[in-house]
Amino acid sequence: MDNISSYVQENKKRFLNELIELLKIPSISADPAFSHDVLNMAEVVKESLEKAGCDKVEICETPGYPIVYGEKIINPALPTVLVYGHYDVQPPDPVELWENDPFSPVIKETPSHPEGAIFARGASDDKGQFYMHVKALEYMVASHNLPCNVKFMIEGEEEIGSESLSWFVKQNQDKLANDVILISDTGMISNEQPSITTGLRGLSYVEVEVTGPNRDLHSGIYGGAVANPINILAKMIASMHDEHNRITVPGFYDKVEELNTEERAEMEKAPFSLDKYKKALDIDSVYGELGYTTNERISIRPTLDVNGIWGGYTGEGAKTVIPAKAYAKISMRLVPNQDWKEITQLFQDYFQSIAPKGVRAKVTPHHGGQGYVTPINSKGYQAAAMAYKHTFGITPIPQRSGGSIPIVSLFEQELHSKTILMGFGLNSDAIHSPNEHYGVWNYLKGIETIPLFYKYFAESGE
Amino acid sequence: MDNISSYVQENKKRFLNELIELLKIPSISADPAFSHDVLNMAEVVKESLEKAGCDKVEICETPGYPIVYGEKIINPALPTVLVYGHYDVQPPDPVELWENDPFSPVIKETPSHPEGAIFARGASDDKGQFYMHVKALEYMVASHNLPCNVKFMIEGEEEIGSESLSWFVKQNQDKLANDVILISDTGMISNEQPSITTGLRGLSYVEVEVTGPNRDLHSGIYGGAVANPINILAKMIASMHDEHNRITVPGFYDKVEELNTEERAEMEKAPFSLDKYKKALDIDSVYGELGYTTNERISIRPTLDVNGIWGGYTGEGAKTVIPAKAYAKISMRLVPNQDWKEITQLFQDYFQSIAPKGVRAKVTPHHGGQGYVTPINSKGYQAAAMAYKHTFGITPIPQRSGGSIPIVSLFEQELHSKTILMGFGLNSDAIHSPNEHYGVWNYLKGIETIPLFYKYFAESGE
Repeated sequence: MDNISSYVQENKKRFLNELIELLKIPSISADPAFSHDVLNMAEVVKESLEKAGCDKVEICETPGYPIVYGEKIINPALPTVLVYGHYDVQPPDPVELWENDPFSPVIKETPSHPEGAIFARGASDDKGQFYMHVKALEYMVASHNLPCNVKFMIEGEEEIGSESLSWFVKQNQDKLANDVILISDTGMISNEQPSITTGLRGLSYVEVEVTGPNRDLHSGIYGGAVANPINILAKMIASMHDEHNRITVPGFYDKVEELNTEERAEMEKAPFSLDKYKKALDIDSVYGELGYTTNERISIRPTLDVNGIWGGYTGEGAKTVIPAKAYAKISMRLVPNQDWKEITQLFQDYFQSIAPKGVRAKVTPHHGGQGYVTPINSKGYQAAAMAYKHTFGITPIPQRSGGSIPIVSLFEQELHSKTILMGFGLNSDAIHSPNEHYGVWNYLKGIETIPLFYKYFAESGE
Repeated sequence: MDNISSYVQENKKRFLNELIELLKIPSISADPAFSHDVLNMAEVVKESLEKAGCDKVEICETPGYPIVYGEKIINPALPTVLVYGHYDVQPPDPVELWENDPFSPVIKETPSHPEGAIFARGASDDKGQFYMHVKALEYMVASHNLPCNVKFMIEGEEEIGSESLSWFVKQNQDKLANDVILISDTGMISNEQPSITTGLRGLSYVEVEVTGPNRDLHSGIYGGAVANPINILAKMIASMHDEHNRITVPGFYDKVEELNTEERAEMEKAPFSLDKYKKALDIDSVYGELGYTTNERISIRPTLDVNGIWGGYTGEGAKTVIPAKAYAKISMRLVPNQDWKEITQLFQDYFQSIAPKGVRAKVTPHHGGQGYVTPINSKGYQAAAMAYKHTFGITPIPQRSGGSIPIVSLFEQELHSKTILMGFGLNSDAIHSPNEHYGVWNYLKGIETIPLFYKYFAESGE
């Protein structure tokens, strides 16, 4: 497999152009206005898998957006790797903050990407990362270096909760049978210090609505005598954290795993500069739960964030109104052992319990998923570590991520196999933000590293 | 003047149709997109004053929207009445809650308006009410019953702060010289129990912005470690009221006039049913400052209401984002003696002082005005009271209103004359709300009552 790096260099331009084409498709799953593009994206993924060398590729219909399934079975006796990714992307807004059109990819250099980065929505999350696997397969097939069987499962609803995927997985356990699941949808510490994500936070996403009077009111005639849904919503949101920034929802922390001193000390070994962190975000101070470091706050501790809020008059100028309703989208990041459905219920009960007389509160659960931790002594993790060591020249550090890939715990439950999170992005790549990008070097390095995972995994005799 | 009622009956249809034409013009001063309509509205007002019998009508340019000035001077030795009104309207949103297009007037019966009401933005506030004065003038001129001089000043920026008006008034004191100012831009208790507004609340309207990180962030990767501008804004808003619903801005209540027991007892005589009030708004409880009745809360006590809030993802579906910024529009209703500029400064200082590390808070003052109280023993008030007594058959009750007409105190200061607030609308007319309407009966009753004010005021020998 030593010719992998030369193969990547020879095909570099084509690999980039192919990704750029994928990035031009606005496959925004959250917004029905783009459903045509999402479906179109599925077709394009199907073709790319066929070109790469899959024997059988199909677009599997679901209650929602289709799942693209492809496989290359060289010998049923050999182990099977299941590659998961998603072809949908987050909405690009606020669009005005993008330096280029989110769906007109541009390659520019950045401090952390001296060799250039591709700027576009989905560049890193997840088109750029899942496509590395397609290109890695292309190489292994073309060079007769594929050491085991491969299955691809690329979905179109990851950014909106993967509902159809769990439906699909539950009814296709045989079809999806595998020995290890491989996902590139996370980040690593830096290009100098690779890391493998061993933990993910769970998620509970809800929408809340506070209703006051049955119509918008004149704030002069009614102001002071009627509960204002915005003031009340603000008050309710504020009361969800105490003075130590701990979440006040009763029972919220009951099942949170408390790491011991050794484990916490181990975590703190990961290179991290608080100054650089604050500088990169242009903030004078971090802000979070008392008694935990920044790295702990974003990995082993649960959170409650308002992701969106709206109500009343938000247009030009002024309107002296007390609105009938106020709304917010709220998400909680959960840690292993917290059950997302249970937490959602606790939130729902608490939110309703703190609504004062004069308003009605409604909570609509949106979606969620469980947290996940993978052991670093598994053959899959070891194979991945060796692959990184081979291409980066340094052993990757195991790291907990603050993000959520809800379906990972679903996979373990339904398919009984471990997931290895081989991410090649950087936290500074601005995923879910304006000007999302993915390093050209990282993209090519990923294509180069993945085949080595197959090699070491097959050799491990799994 | 006994033929006024028959004159109104004979011309009823025409009076309604003329008002309906005015209501078709979307003269929304807050939204620049409608500037053409606002300017067009000024032209239409000019023509209506000419038709009604003004000798001299002009459209006076200002730094903002023009002011329509008209006059009918029959004898400089006689007293002069200055009529003020505004031809601009509030934005109609949320448009989806209107039963008819806000600018396609419809006449429908309602429980409080068995003879029908005109549904349209501006029907009561203030097109329907200022136009009563135009029609009253038409009658007095046509029937040679005009007992004194009249001046009209109709502006186009009342809903956005009347900035140009104060500029205009300050440089036209001679032109606007008068003995009493007459305004119909308020309401009365009911069609059975008329009332005259003797007090108005002041206003301070600001826009606030809370900035956290320099870009939107992924709530998984950064959630828990970075101050979320929405959570912080909610916390800051919540901390602006204490557990007794008193405003916590230091110094806010320093100049608030405290009424004595007699005055408060007098106020409570106004007919009011808390059950009906709650039923009309479909709320299970009122909500406000501890120790004060609903009527007091909306008249003699200051307030702080959020009129609009926005930030983060508010579109379809879900987006797990920590936004860079969150915003709110906040207005405070003030009572006599509170200086709106001073209060705005106090708010600004306090809001900035409670912003935690990790965010930056910005306050942009929008507009404001002083509160106002008019004595009930003035000749103007007495003339108005007699006019109502004449047409309603019952003496009106003096009443403090919770609303604000900032320019009233400006008039007193610059033109040294008292303002009489002869309002004919009802609180249930939904001004500033979807489905604003104005009773046909009230409209015609107003046209009938206004000439009597002129009669009694002229006779009073002012």
